[in-house]
Amino acid sequence: MSLQRLIELIDKKRNPTVAGLDPLPEYVPGHIRKQNYDAFGPTLEAEIESIRVFNHALIDALEDIVPAVKPQSAFYERLGPKGALLLSDTVDYAKKKGMYVILDAKRGDIGSTAKAYAQAYLGEIEVEGRVYEPYPCDCLTVNAYLGSDGIDPFIDLCRERDKAVFVLVKTSNPSSGEFQDRLIDGEPLYIQVARKVAEWGDRSTERTHGYTNVGAVVGATYPKEQKILRTLLPRTMFLVPGYGAQGATADQIVSAFDRDGKGAIVNSSRGILCAWKKAGSDGRDFAECARKEALRMQADLNRALETRKGEDI
Amino acid sequence: MSLQRLIELIDKKRNPTVAGLDPLPEYVPGHIRKQNYDAFGPTLEAEIESIRVFNHALIDALEDIVPAVKPQSAFYERLGPKGALLLSDTVDYAKKKGMYVILDAKRGDIGSTAKAYAQAYLGEIEVEGRVYEPYPCDCLTVNAYLGSDGIDPFIDLCRERDKAVFVLVKTSNPSSGEFQDRLIDGEPLYIQVARKVAEWGDRSTERTHGYTNVGAVVGATYPKEQKILRTLLPRTMFLVPGYGAQGATADQIVSAFDRDGKGAIVNSSRGILCAWKKAGSDGRDFAECARKEALRMQADLNRALETRKGEDI
Repeated sequence: MSLQRLIELIDKKRNPTVAGLDPLPEYVPGHIRKQNYDAFGPTLEAEIESIRVFNHALIDALEDIVPAVKPQSAFYERLGPKGALLLSDTVDYAKKKGMYVILDAKRGDIGSTAKAYAQAYLGEIEVEGRVYEPYPCDCLTVNAYLGSDGIDPFIDLCRERDKAVFVLVKTSNPSSGEFQDRLIDGEPLYIQVARKVAEWGDRSTERTHGYTNVGAVVGATYPKEQKILRTLLPRTMFLVPGYGAQGATADQIVSAFDRDGKGAIVNSSRGILCAWKKAGSDGRDFAECARKEALRMQADLNRALETRKGEDI
Repeated sequence: MSLQRLIELIDKKRNPTVAGLDPLPEYVPGHIRKQNYDAFGPTLEAEIESIRVFNHALIDALEDIVPAVKPQSAFYERLGPKGALLLSDTVDYAKKKGMYVILDAKRGDIGSTAKAYAQAYLGEIEVEGRVYEPYPCDCLTVNAYLGSDGIDPFIDLCRERDKAVFVLVKTSNPSSGEFQDRLIDGEPLYIQVARKVAEWGDRSTERTHGYTNVGAVVGATYPKEQKILRTLLPRTMFLVPGYGAQGATADQIVSAFDRDGKGAIVNSSRGILCAWKKAGSDGRDFAECARKEALRMQADLNRALETRKGEDI
C-alpha cells in the first residue's frame, strides 16, 4: 500500500506511531516461554513458537490503536530458516488485522539483485502461471549507498503496485555522522541522498500531490538535521526511529512533521515490546502493558504536535 | 573461517575465483525443472527443489577447482520462507564439501540490530544451553552507510570466531559513483570508507601480518579506483565482482591483486551458472559446462597474473 494510504490510517487512528516488532527471546514473558519449552523441549522451535504467540498477542492488543507494525528482519534471520517462516507469519497476521506492514530490512544491491529483493518484499514471482507474494509487505527500508540503479527496481514496484520504501537518509545511531555528515560540495552526504530521495519519489507514484511512495528514514536523535530535511523534502514521508529508548522526546520529534502535523511516523520497539518489564510485571499482562505504553506514546506525540500548532514554524 | 584461510584455499587450488550462486529459476536446465514439476506439480516447491539439485550439482562440479562459493541472499529471499531453507541447505552443502562460503547479503544496521545480523550469519545463538548456528557462513558482505557502530558487532565476531566480512567500498554497478565518487575533503567517499575498512581490519584479528578479516568489495568495472584502493589497503583482501557478464577483463582485474598475485578473489555468477546456455546446450551437461567455464576463467586469471609479474607495478 502507498504511503498516502498509511497517512490515512494514521489520520483514522489519530496516531503517528509504528510498533517495531524486534523480538529477542528475552522480551517474551516467562510464562509463554515455559509453556513452549514444556511442549517442544528446550529448543529453537519452542523459542520461535513463543515469539509467534507474543507477536500475535501484541498485534491483537495494538491493531485498533496503532496503524502500522515494523518487523526488523535481523531478529527473524538470527533464528535461522525457521525464523523466515516466523517473519512470514507475522507479516500475514498483521496484514489480516488491517495493519500497515513496514519491513525493516535495509536492503540494497545492484540492479538485478535489487530486483530480486524488490520481488521478495514488495512484488510477486510467477511459477508456471501461478503467482506468489513471497513476503507481502506494504513497505521496505532500503540503503542507497549503491546509487540509483540499486533503487530503481524498488521504485518500479512502488509505482506499479502502489508499494513504498523508506530510504536511509540520516540514521539515529551515534556514529551515523561518520559518513552521513561529511560535506560534499558544502552539503552533508545525507542531504545529497535526500535530494535523490525527492527525485526517486517523483517517479514512484502517478500522483502529483501529497506524499510520494519514497519516504526517508530520519533519526529522531538528530533534531537539527530532522528540521533541515523536513524543509528540503515537502512531499517525503519520514520514518522516525529514536523515540524513547534511544533518547529523543516527543517535543524534539515534532519537527519531523509538516505544518499540518502529518508526514511522519515514529517508531517504538523496545518501549512497547518490553513495557511489561518497565512496569515491573511478571509479564502475564504484557499485552495490556504494551497497549498502555502505545496509548501513552500516542498522547505524548499528539500533545507535542498540538503544542507546536500555536508556534510559528 | 578467516580471510587468511581463504587465501590458503586459493593458493592450494591455484584459483582466485568465487562462484556466485545466484540462481534464478530460468538458469536451471529444463530437464531438472520438468522432473520436479512432474513430482511436485507446477509449484514453488518444485522450483525450489530444482534449484537445490542445480546448486548441489554445481558445487560437486566445482569443489575441487574453485575455493569458494558466494550465494546471493536476494535470490533465496525472493522464493519466500522456503527460500531460507534452500539457502541454509546450500550453505551446509558447500561447507561439507570444504568450500569457503561468502554470503552476499550486504547487511547493515544500527548496533543491536547489526549484532542480530552478525549472529545470524557469522555467529551462534543459545537456547537454554543449546547452541545453534543459524546460517554457518564463513564470511558476509556488509554495508557501512551507518558508520562504525553498525560494523562493530561484525568485527567482534571476526576476531572472536575467526570469521570475515567484505565491506562495500566501490561497487561494480553503473551508478556506483553517484554517492561513492563524491569528494569529501578532496577525496571520494569510497576512499573515506576504505580508510575505515583498514581501521576495522586492524581490530578484526590478532594477527599483525597478512590479511585482516575485513575485506573490501571493489568492482572490477572501475580499474582506476581498484588500483588506488590496492595501494591504499595493503592488508585488505578484495572481493571483485564485475568479471565477464559485467564487462571487466582479466587484464583489468589483476590490479586488484598485490605484487605476489594474492589478496583478491574474483566473482563469476551467471558466467558459470549459465555456461550451458552460452554453449548452446540443452542443459543436460550444465555441470560440465560450469566446470569448463570455471577452468577457462582460472586459466584466464592466472595468465593475466603471470603476464603482470614481469611488469613494474
